[in-house]
Amino acid sequence: MSDKKVRFGVVGLGNMGSGHVPSIMGMRDATVGAVCDVDPVKADRAAGPFNLPKFNNHREMIRSGLIDAVLVATPHYDHVPIAIDALEAGLHALVEKPIAVSVKAARQVIEVAKKFPNQKFGIMFNQRTNPMYKKMRDLILDGELGKISRVTWIITDWFRTWTYYASGGWRATWAGEGGGVLINQCPHNLDLIQWVTGMMPSRITAVGFVGKTHPIEVEDEMSAILEYPDGAIGHFITTTGEAPGTNRFEIAGDRGKLIAEHGKITFVRTRENVTEVNQKSPHSFASIESWTIDIPYPRAEGGEHQRLTENFVSAILRGTPMLGPGVEGVNGLEIGNAMMMSGLTRKPVELPIDGDVYDAFLQDMAKKFGGRKTLDTKAVAVDMNASFSKA
Amino acid sequence: MSDKKVRFGVVGLGNMGSGHVPSIMGMRDATVGAVCDVDPVKADRAAGPFNLPKFNNHREMIRSGLIDAVLVATPHYDHVPIAIDALEAGLHALVEKPIAVSVKAARQVIEVAKKFPNQKFGIMFNQRTNPMYKKMRDLILDGELGKISRVTWIITDWFRTWTYYASGGWRATWAGEGGGVLINQCPHNLDLIQWVTGMMPSRITAVGFVGKTHPIEVEDEMSAILEYPDGAIGHFITTTGEAPGTNRFEIAGDRGKLIAEHGKITFVRTRENVTEVNQKSPHSFASIESWTIDIPYPRAEGGEHQRLTENFVSAILRGTPMLGPGVEGVNGLEIGNAMMMSGLTRKPVELPIDGDVYDAFLQDMAKKFGGRKTLDTKAVAVDMNASFSKA
Repeated sequence: MSDKKVRFGVVGLGNMGSGHVPSIMGMRDATVGAVCDVDPVKADRAAGPFNLPKFNNHREMIRSGLIDAVLVATPHYDHVPIAIDALEAGLHALVEKPIAVSVKAARQVIEVAKKFPNQKFGIMFNQRTNPMYKKMRDLILDGELGKISRVTWIITDWFRTWTYYASGGWRATWAGEGGGVLINQCPHNLDLIQWVTGMMPSRITAVGFVGKTHPIEVEDEMSAILEYPDGAIGHFITTTGEAPGTNRFEIAGDRGKLIAEHGKITFVRTRENVTEVNQKSPHSFASIESWTIDIPYPRAEGGEHQRLTENFVSAILRGTPMLGPGVEGVNGLEIGNAMMMSGLTRKPVELPIDGDVYDAFLQDMAKKFGGRKTLDTKAVAVDMNASFSKA
Repeated sequence: MSDKKVRFGVVGLGNMGSGHVPSIMGMRDATVGAVCDVDPVKADRAAGPFNLPKFNNHREMIRSGLIDAVLVATPHYDHVPIAIDALEAGLHALVEKPIAVSVKAARQVIEVAKKFPNQKFGIMFNQRTNPMYKKMRDLILDGELGKISRVTWIITDWFRTWTYYASGGWRATWAGEGGGVLINQCPHNLDLIQWVTGMMPSRITAVGFVGKTHPIEVEDEMSAILEYPDGAIGHFITTTGEAPGTNRFEIAGDRGKLIAEHGKITFVRTRENVTEVNQKSPHSFASIESWTIDIPYPRAEGGEHQRLTENFVSAILRGTPMLGPGVEGVNGLEIGNAMMMSGLTRKPVELPIDGDVYDAFLQDMAKKFGGRKTLDTKAVAVDMNASFSKA
């Protein structure tokens, strides 16, 4: 297969999917073999400029013989069933974030993918191609920061207007999305907080609000405290109601702290090991010499989605390690599910969480808050480029 | 009384009290009339350089006729009984932070003070004289920030070594201090978070740890989420185990956000009202023009303790409004008490809190954790100037 292009079938031609089509058409090693949407108008619109084969049923596209891989960009609840259909039909599958709405479904598709080790199963963790986050991860994995004591991410620059929520009837509903800011805006942050640090929390205590600043039925604000098994503490603070908002990712450890803000990494590095000074210094108020360092990192070429998709293609053609392997898709989702359940029930939640318990919680939320969204759906021109968080 | 100096009796001649003596001796409108400590060595050492009358019992000093006001700088539990003795004897009282260990005792001394409206009762909220915090408060009270939506304070630059905790047997014990980082290091931050914003939370959800990075029996780390009655959210993150630590105080509102860090106030001001744009913009991803402004504020002369004490003296002599009126001392304490109880019981706590419930909780903590401090007390030279948080 190394001498030919990977043919994608793009399913779900809304804001994201319709953007992927021209991007993939421009790739050296990939092309779009077909497009699919249950809405014929959307399928026509995406197929037209390239005169592509089009379908209204993803199963027909899968068995058409026209494609090698499915790119799933449908509403969230359809990610898992379509990915399973693709994998079971012998195709590769690349799924937009989030992998699923709930951990149970995510674990299910991961189990299916394990049965087909020769097919690639990836998640569109495009922000893993962001060289700033890659650099932070490299520094931490290399031990530059020492043992981590605190991970704090204030990520409140996800401002969304009432018009945004009115732009799709499914938006900001339990039935349509299975959540709000955690499931739609934050999946990348929730993935990065575990990917950059290499740590999964074991307990989450959160305070969340449904429809605080928008007339919607899902959460638009969440504040969470994360406890890690080795004693580190974490914080995750988000909302879609603040502007201009803050995006500050701060990680403290035995050798100082890393701060990512305004696209810049600052490393305030302690000359001595903090724990050692804490335990052994003869001084009560020991001040540790620290150096404020601007950490350089390379600028990347192309867009993040393009780079992630090209990596996926290269994994298929040349066995390149995947940046966003599907099996890791559950980690950030699990953190988000735990925040959601803790934040809306106001009780601490232990991880790993029970998939059935979470699904029952989701049904409770739908019952309790369903119908509270009072915005009429309006056709709105959407520029998705404006939606990606500025790191 | 306007033609003479206010004569202070300084009781408690440890690190703080022994520093206040020479400072007050240098004031134009105040002097030290006497000093007092249960430890004769400390009383001698403080009295010596100025040849001051000295006592080992605060009641004797109070009735000596040598003083007009008592400055209480004893361990925390003695603040309330000594202040009450002073007030009931017709003297003014200025109390080091915290006003008390628990809200019940704080409310008690406030009730006593109300009976003596002609005597001044103040708390050493020296950081209220910090022009940076004064400026932030002015901007907020003037409405420059609009309605507040989020208050986040990462205040992790309270690094304290094991040697610090070994420097006094009473330190970091329930019986000696009634708490750790919240009651000893953070009272100013806990006061400022309500003084600068003018808002008291109505519910606190916290995660705290006893002896996480030090072998002590009280909390040395606390992460708290604050809910305000008008819908604003707050966060307070502190520890004595991190270095160099962060001190970033961020307040978001309808006109952007204020950030205080590194002694600098940055106002990222939105040109339009955030709530109005949220509700009325025709765009899904509205980006609001914002201006990054360095807010100027005057540099203050003299030390903070000196300025607060001089303000207290001026309140006595000339009726100047007090910067740290005693009645306000309970606010920050109440926030700290609620954090402590929530953080160590892992249950949300509503404010105002029940004083008896909190006192029972304190006794539970003493029973549960008492004796876990395993540091032998050592004589350590302490430079208190190193202890004040750099704003």
